[in-house]
Amino acid sequence: MNASAAPGGDPGSLPAEVRVVNVGLSLFADAVRAQGAAAVDVDWRIPAGGRTELVAALARLYGPLAERVDAANREVLRRLDTGAPALVGVATAAAVVPGMGGRTVLHCGPPLAWDDFCDPLRRSARATVMAEGWAATAAEADRLIAAGGVELEPANHHATVVPMATTLGPSAPVLVVDNPPGGNRAFAPINQGPGLTAWFGADAPAAVERLVWLRDAAAPVLAAALAGAGEVELFPIAAQGLQMGDDLHMRTQAATNLLLRHLLPDLVAVEDPALGEVARFLSGNHLFFLNLAMAAAKAVTDWAASVPDASVVVAMARNGTTFGIRLAGDAGWSAAPAPPVGRALYYPGFGPDSSAPDIGDSAVLELVGLGGPAAAASPAVAAFLGGTVADAVATTEAMDRICLGRSSRFKLPLLDYRGTPVGVDVRRVVELELTPSINTGILHASEGTGQVGAGIAEAPVACFQQALLGLDARLAPGG
Amino acid sequence: MNASAAPGGDPGSLPAEVRVVNVGLSLFADAVRAQGAAAVDVDWRIPAGGRTELVAALARLYGPLAERVDAANREVLRRLDTGAPALVGVATAAAVVPGMGGRTVLHCGPPLAWDDFCDPLRRSARATVMAEGWAATAAEADRLIAAGGVELEPANHHATVVPMATTLGPSAPVLVVDNPPGGNRAFAPINQGPGLTAWFGADAPAAVERLVWLRDAAAPVLAAALAGAGEVELFPIAAQGLQMGDDLHMRTQAATNLLLRHLLPDLVAVEDPALGEVARFLSGNHLFFLNLAMAAAKAVTDWAASVPDASVVVAMARNGTTFGIRLAGDAGWSAAPAPPVGRALYYPGFGPDSSAPDIGDSAVLELVGLGGPAAAASPAVAAFLGGTVADAVATTEAMDRICLGRSSRFKLPLLDYRGTPVGVDVRRVVELELTPSINTGILHASEGTGQVGAGIAEAPVACFQQALLGLDARLAPGG
Repeated sequence: MNASAAPGGDPGSLPAEVRVVNVGLSLFADAVRAQGAAAVDVDWRIPAGGRTELVAALARLYGPLAERVDAANREVLRRLDTGAPALVGVATAAAVVPGMGGRTVLHCGPPLAWDDFCDPLRRSARATVMAEGWAATAAEADRLIAAGGVELEPANHHATVVPMATTLGPSAPVLVVDNPPGGNRAFAPINQGPGLTAWFGADAPAAVERLVWLRDAAAPVLAAALAGAGEVELFPIAAQGLQMGDDLHMRTQAATNLLLRHLLPDLVAVEDPALGEVARFLSGNHLFFLNLAMAAAKAVTDWAASVPDASVVVAMARNGTTFGIRLAGDAGWSAAPAPPVGRALYYPGFGPDSSAPDIGDSAVLELVGLGGPAAAASPAVAAFLGGTVADAVATTEAMDRICLGRSSRFKLPLLDYRGTPVGVDVRRVVELELTPSINTGILHASEGTGQVGAGIAEAPVACFQQALLGLDARLAPGG
Repeated sequence: MNASAAPGGDPGSLPAEVRVVNVGLSLFADAVRAQGAAAVDVDWRIPAGGRTELVAALARLYGPLAERVDAANREVLRRLDTGAPALVGVATAAAVVPGMGGRTVLHCGPPLAWDDFCDPLRRSARATVMAEGWAATAAEADRLIAAGGVELEPANHHATVVPMATTLGPSAPVLVVDNPPGGNRAFAPINQGPGLTAWFGADAPAAVERLVWLRDAAAPVLAAALAGAGEVELFPIAAQGLQMGDDLHMRTQAATNLLLRHLLPDLVAVEDPALGEVARFLSGNHLFFLNLAMAAAKAVTDWAASVPDASVVVAMARNGTTFGIRLAGDAGWSAAPAPPVGRALYYPGFGPDSSAPDIGDSAVLELVGLGGPAAAASPAVAAFLGGTVADAVATTEAMDRICLGRSSRFKLPLLDYRGTPVGVDVRRVVELELTPSINTGILHASEGTGQVGAGIAEAPVACFQQALLGLDARLAPGG
């Protein structure tokens, strides 16, 4: 409280005029205002909810350890902002994805035992096992997996990211994305498109057929077109997409169209009887670029992940059961139960009760300045965030509070071309108890009927708290 | 002036407190403010610049004639807002454009004698004459035209609109756009793309070759693709383009991409050796949709043009020498000298001195709620309007002041999805001396080197004044 006495007044008497700066709860300021005096509120909260061990860790990580952590973070930010991921081709997973031999099936999110798989992810895994030809029916596939006949692995451990409930078998085609500055490579499956599909948690015959068609028909056509087109740098397309109303997570319409226009000369040159079908598929799938943006973000975050001692988040993924993050310099996951997708819009007849929890590796986008941090770029996404452009701007600005920098390439026209927030600092998340917002789709909880809506998921603070304590323990073992 | 005396004061004495509403010039309000009193400015000007005959015409058209004019305007607005133009194919001009026999060459803008053609339009006409095979060299083409061997006609008189310095010969391909609600049809040439082209005022061999290639190679491929795709409604694509940062005049990138994605399955199915070249051309021409938007606007404004007694502008076109408008219900042009393009950005090495005046039929877009009225949709266009999104919003709001309605389909996300202004009322333009803003390109004045920049042209008020007097004379012959 700042009480300024009237000039010349007796310092022992009450001041003639009072102006108040109120920190924390607004009750006191309200009382001051009710008496006609001016009061300014400061939105201050007890850091880290006042939990002693968190406050102590923060005190060390912002105090004696700060120089070491900040230096690491600068290098992480440099990598996140200068990685240059480029699409170089389409290949069979077993041939290019590291550690993808035998009967491996990659899934979204942190590691998970089969018993803990949620319904949509379970169905997706069955669909993949059927597409691989290891089982003829969903029941047979289920028995094979339950008996340990399939090695379930998090895609993130294999330089790969998969959206929603996608699973990936060794015969599936993957998009290959190189990051020359880091000398590393990342992968994502081809987006499966709309309808009854495995990535939306379906194991119906149509979903299996889609996987087979993507492998046998679409992949060769795309591979031929990409061979003609040469490398395609992905972040410049994403940056243009932000200028055209995409957030590059929930909406990738503009970026998809830009890519298709770029590939057009090489697509028409493909000599393959499936070209017409593939063109129809591409023409009807405005999320085609989603998986490319994800592979690009994975390439860049994997490069950043090898920097030790940082407090920046470089992996954020959900399997529908748990939500996990990883910090740069630490291969371990910090996980918490997957949250529901709040602030959602549902297809008619659906609602929170029929919705699976937040799922998929796509939250990697939020770590490179796309999706939630780029909400202010997308009036269409604003519809999910309260309806007005101001709500979308507020989402971007909340991300600004927990990020260490701003993208030098992803710009927001509505905020005078300010860069999108990049570099989620686990210290800030824990201190402010403010977690990243993730723009995402919603799947049916149990019926395998696919997408039922879309909305905004708030990452659970518990995994950030756990990661903070882990970082503190690594850097200050005696602390 | 509104001087409120202090309550209870002597009404004969000066008031104790003065608050001022100042109408018109701000000098008086400035003086009041300098003395510490409050003053509010009303931006009032003498209507129509105080010109007696204009004020008298306005008094009649807003007074005794208003009911008749307003009824007509309602029907014009209904047609502008409910026309449903659809691309139905590509055909040879002579075969489909009315009155296009013999050696007719259509040009942009109001009627114009050859001697009055500006340099870029003159070059374009020569290029068309060479592409038609009527002359082998530019000099020969010039002599043929000067000798009256070519019939020069405004495209607007033939249900056709052409952008920038485009001219159109009988063998040229045209995009055919039907407007079922009006039972009418409009045409535009295929956009010639970037580089040294006739629509940018070039008559070099490359410009002639482009015209020949568009006719002999591109048109058959596009015709085949469109035959496969069926009708393509154009305004829904334009409306989506506005959601993706297009103004649909200076920028048609998003709409072009949406159209190409729509046509993709039918493009890849075309069996024609030129398909690859055409795909490369389409992939490199983000103004491809411009001519389609123009033909769509022409179809709708031509339908509206047959409503008698209206004060709404239904044609607005420039030939580089004159700027002309037409009102609904009147086939005659009201013309004034073509203005320079102000508020411009130039390519390096160019500037106002090397720039031709405002040219082309594309200003028809500004009559249906695209281009200038849609400036607030396009952060990229804002760069030409002062640099910030607020400048673009101001341009849209200025159009609102001279328009009678708002589009029910072209929406502005930044203005809470308000419709773009539609229906330029010549009464409001003359009363406020505020003319439409037109987002447009700039050509070299004399060297045939093509585009040198882009900017915003302000329509000259003189042709609106002339049109107002003409309307008044038609409706109130004894007035």
